Amino acid sequence: MKPSFIYVGIRVKDMSKSIEFYTKFLGMEDKGHSRIEVTKGDVVYLESKDAKVGIELNHYDKDSQFNSDYVVGEGLDHLAFSVEEFDATMRQAREAGYKIFKEVDTGKSKWAYIEDPNGIWIELCKSG
Amino acid sequence: MKPSFIYVGIRVKDMSKSIEFYTKFLGMEDKGHSRIEVTKGDVVYLESKDAKVGIELNHYDKDSQFNSDYVVGEGLDHLAFSVEEFDATMRQAREAGYKIFKEVDTGKSKWAYIEDPNGIWIELCKSG
Repeated sequence: MKPSFIYVGIRVKDMSKSIEFYTKFLGMEDKGHSRIEVTKGDVVYLESKDAKVGIELNHYDKDSQFNSDYVVGEGLDHLAFSVEEFDATMRQAREAGYKIFKEVDTGKSKWAYIEDPNGIWIELCKSG
Repeated sequence: MKPSFIYVGIRVKDMSKSIEFYTKFLGMEDKGHSRIEVTKGDVVYLESKDAKVGIELNHYDKDSQFNSDYVVGEGLDHLAFSVEEFDATMRQAREAGYKIFKEVDTGKSKWAYIEDPNGIWIELCKSG
């Protein structure tokens, strides 16, 4: 029996700004909050439309052993989301003040990279 | 129309060791290799059993602008896989020499954290 990829856990600096970004802006569904006392951490589980793989937001208290200097690093390159209404989504990103650092329009396809509230790169691409 | 989460891109130090880890050990399917000349990068797209969200392995040439010092960082906390045959999977991980740094058995559930060839944390958990 093969393993199943079930979620990607990202570490966040600001839980409420992160929840807002992933649910309000990226339309993910908040499936539940947990408190893990042993790690002094808070966990929020999110799911996207149709996707069987979720995103888990992890935040650690100041006195948690896992609350280290926050460096996004190269391990995580980016998280990708397809959007049908690309121009409207980019307009929303601008209005929300999210940092947009690359926009590409080849005529056939459009995509862009923005930053989530933690500095994680988010790719938005026009589907279909 | 809501965005769809479609994949997580990770950056890898060693493409062939990473492909081996994610396909041979974690059972993902290699869905295709691409070369992106503009970034001087190689991309391999992987999918897991039943999952609609993939993992994209990204590797950049030495002279690519994206070939920076490789730090896993805190942005990516971990990637999680559920396994039905937990003990057999851990045995395979040991035999393959993958670093195991935490194993938990509560009696009701079992999970462990190991490192992929790039130092990225991989959670293995017993499903069901």
